[in-house]
Amino acid sequence: MAQKDNILIIGAGLCGSLLALRLAQRGYQITLVEKRPDLRKVTQDAGRSINLALSDRGLKGLRLAGVEEEAKKLCIPMNGRMIHDKEGNTFLSPYSGREGEYINSISRPGLNMLLLDAIDKMPNVTTYFNLGCEEVDLENASTSFKNYETGKTETYSGDILIGTDGAGSAVRRNMFEHKKFLFSFSQQWLTHGYKELEIPAGEDGGFKTYKNALHIWPRGEDMLIALPNLDGSFTVTLFLPYANSDYCFDNLITAEKVEEYFKKEFPDALELIPNLAEEYFNNPTGPLGTIKCSPWHCYGKSLLMGDAAHAIVPFYGQGMNASFEDVVVFDEVLEKFEGNWEQVFSEYEKARKIDTDAIADLAVDNFHEMKEHTASPLFQQKRKLEIAFETQLPKEYFSKYSLVTFNEAIPYSLAMKRGRAQDKAILNLLDDGKLKDDMSLEEKLQLVIKETNDILHDDAVVKNL
Amino acid sequence: MAQKDNILIIGAGLCGSLLALRLAQRGYQITLVEKRPDLRKVTQDAGRSINLALSDRGLKGLRLAGVEEEAKKLCIPMNGRMIHDKEGNTFLSPYSGREGEYINSISRPGLNMLLLDAIDKMPNVTTYFNLGCEEVDLENASTSFKNYETGKTETYSGDILIGTDGAGSAVRRNMFEHKKFLFSFSQQWLTHGYKELEIPAGEDGGFKTYKNALHIWPRGEDMLIALPNLDGSFTVTLFLPYANSDYCFDNLITAEKVEEYFKKEFPDALELIPNLAEEYFNNPTGPLGTIKCSPWHCYGKSLLMGDAAHAIVPFYGQGMNASFEDVVVFDEVLEKFEGNWEQVFSEYEKARKIDTDAIADLAVDNFHEMKEHTASPLFQQKRKLEIAFETQLPKEYFSKYSLVTFNEAIPYSLAMKRGRAQDKAILNLLDDGKLKDDMSLEEKLQLVIKETNDILHDDAVVKNL
Repeated sequence: MAQKDNILIIGAGLCGSLLALRLAQRGYQITLVEKRPDLRKVTQDAGRSINLALSDRGLKGLRLAGVEEEAKKLCIPMNGRMIHDKEGNTFLSPYSGREGEYINSISRPGLNMLLLDAIDKMPNVTTYFNLGCEEVDLENASTSFKNYETGKTETYSGDILIGTDGAGSAVRRNMFEHKKFLFSFSQQWLTHGYKELEIPAGEDGGFKTYKNALHIWPRGEDMLIALPNLDGSFTVTLFLPYANSDYCFDNLITAEKVEEYFKKEFPDALELIPNLAEEYFNNPTGPLGTIKCSPWHCYGKSLLMGDAAHAIVPFYGQGMNASFEDVVVFDEVLEKFEGNWEQVFSEYEKARKIDTDAIADLAVDNFHEMKEHTASPLFQQKRKLEIAFETQLPKEYFSKYSLVTFNEAIPYSLAMKRGRAQDKAILNLLDDGKLKDDMSLEEKLQLVIKETNDILHDDAVVKNL
Repeated sequence: MAQKDNILIIGAGLCGSLLALRLAQRGYQITLVEKRPDLRKVTQDAGRSINLALSDRGLKGLRLAGVEEEAKKLCIPMNGRMIHDKEGNTFLSPYSGREGEYINSISRPGLNMLLLDAIDKMPNVTTYFNLGCEEVDLENASTSFKNYETGKTETYSGDILIGTDGAGSAVRRNMFEHKKFLFSFSQQWLTHGYKELEIPAGEDGGFKTYKNALHIWPRGEDMLIALPNLDGSFTVTLFLPYANSDYCFDNLITAEKVEEYFKKEFPDALELIPNLAEEYFNNPTGPLGTIKCSPWHCYGKSLLMGDAAHAIVPFYGQGMNASFEDVVVFDEVLEKFEGNWEQVFSEYEKARKIDTDAIADLAVDNFHEMKEHTASPLFQQKRKLEIAFETQLPKEYFSKYSLVTFNEAIPYSLAMKRGRAQDKAILNLLDDGKLKDDMSLEEKLQLVIKETNDILHDDAVVKNL
């Protein structure tokens, strides 16, 4: 067998590492280059998102590369959202009415290290750290990097290159500034930013609040969430407007103001975060943006993947999952068209972009849903009905959240289309009083299904005339 | 009265010129700077769009500045689309069933000159040409320009600056690269490009085809259009995919191929364009893009307006009209909040962006409608019904096209919402066979109105829950 092509992968985060592992398993010669230091050898930055939600689509990607079982050892199952009101009362809103449908809290660096360890066992991968991507020769799959240790420039190349260098991708910036082809590009920022805080473990190493849930304190414009870590701590994230609000990042500028705000809005969380002001002022405030672009590839030589191609806001817990699913889809396309990179790249984008666009839009939807709608009576009636459907008729109904999170056989774009139509059907049936108390749950479901199909039909007539 | 502020306006195209004229009329001291030479002193570039569709919203802007009547002298009314089929048969599809609802073909340089002449009469405007915008100091409303005649750098400033420097705006690029605030930005390219051609005037100076229409040769993916000029000629624009088509810009690379294509698709147009190959190869191929961004302003010092803030594709004939309407809206906001630029800028964007986003989306919709849907039987049934409504019930029905084009009291965003709901209602009623032959036109309209309102209500329940 002839030796397979050399592939230069830029970015050894979650997506780049899984991709390198998988392509190495397929026999390619991989050069994997990362800007940051090897995270197995340094202490972690404070303030970077240190845990993430891993669900079915992400697990499928890990399974493809044979590391699912090991990854599961790092997981803490979260069965639902634990809602905290202003008085500190809580109630658990399950993610699904079906058993076995939960998402997992997992450490970002822990999972990344697991992938890097697996890569180290492959003889056909060479990994470099501390090399920052600068100029990319897109036509020749060659890239110059700045070595942050020596200060010198080093150049690496491959038969092709793949940029998995995240939301701030330098490879994508090179495409944007290349100007030899039309590059559609969009960056959309929310009016909110985020800041990470910590609920430390209890003195006995235990969890200071319920372990198996994604905790959420919804407050209209603002929101606090917390995900558990294996060491008993929780990573807390505050989502807050930058400006134009009684409490916002622009005016929470003294310890007193921050404590006043938490005392008023999140009193039970305040008790669990001993170093609130210190953490608040030491940790950076991050922006929340959606990035889309097209084409993802050029010259049959260069390709973007993961957040570099499609960064999304975190409100569906699907960022990492979407990137791992990228690897699955790329692997399928590669299986079909191996030997013709131009075709592999273009078929991959054709198969995949519609779905990453969809999850980007769904994540923005969920931003609004989580902050505002959870307080709406109509929305709460809808969730109650959906939980009843999913518990009592588990094979017949899947909510939008279930379609997106637990049904990896259904592409994001279809989950969005069906899920949005279902939501619209239920909300309108409730609003019109058509779901009557004396109807059985099955009758209600039949009505919802009929209304959903009508909505999908009416939309299709307009699109396909 | 104290002297009013100095305003630096960058770009003396259609929007910048109208804005300069209006703000001068309000008493401001204006410095107007243009990259190109004074178009009254040079021969025109070939291949730039030399006529445009002027309709009600644009006329309202010209009226505000007192130049509507003069502009009308440059106008050729177009009452409808003259559709040309492959055999050269034509039929006229009116823009509206109501009298007096038509759009106008007008020369872009002619209108620009008219505005520059009006500006020259204002003592409080100083205009400079041949100065290309380079570095913009957004915080201090100061800008360095390259003088293309001397090669030297010149700096101008004002109390505020307004960038009206078009789709490729240098002021906007400065905002994008500024990085001190979050700048949402999107550039979306269509798969098609455009190229301008000419049908010259007849030997007697007359029009070689029907004068008072926008001529259109719809051919699925491809499209040719022609608008009349006062001198008897027509400016023709070919819209064609760049690639991946039997005939596309990438493969129409010989005179034979171009003539073969026109002979096959546009035989009657071919006869009217004597120098087809020469024009085809001498004129540039332009891209078709939509640009959106936000914020349009920063520091209470710098603002974007017109195409610089929101470039759109030409398929609704609203680009210039939207830019002139910008001036009207800005003038209204200025009237209310004069004296506080920060507030003027932010109220202006709040009032206006929703509408420029809407016309951008409508223009892309119309690209698809003009190419594909005009061939669909369902679409043609719909247009027939709408023309009947507008002719026989002219006070009760306004098509989406009419709402956008002839009803400047209705903002683009409402025109889009109502227009899309109406289209969906009619298409679905037709598809379901609910508009029966034995119904009177009034009964049909009542059914369309009811269905439209139901659609709007169902959408509102989802949005406002």
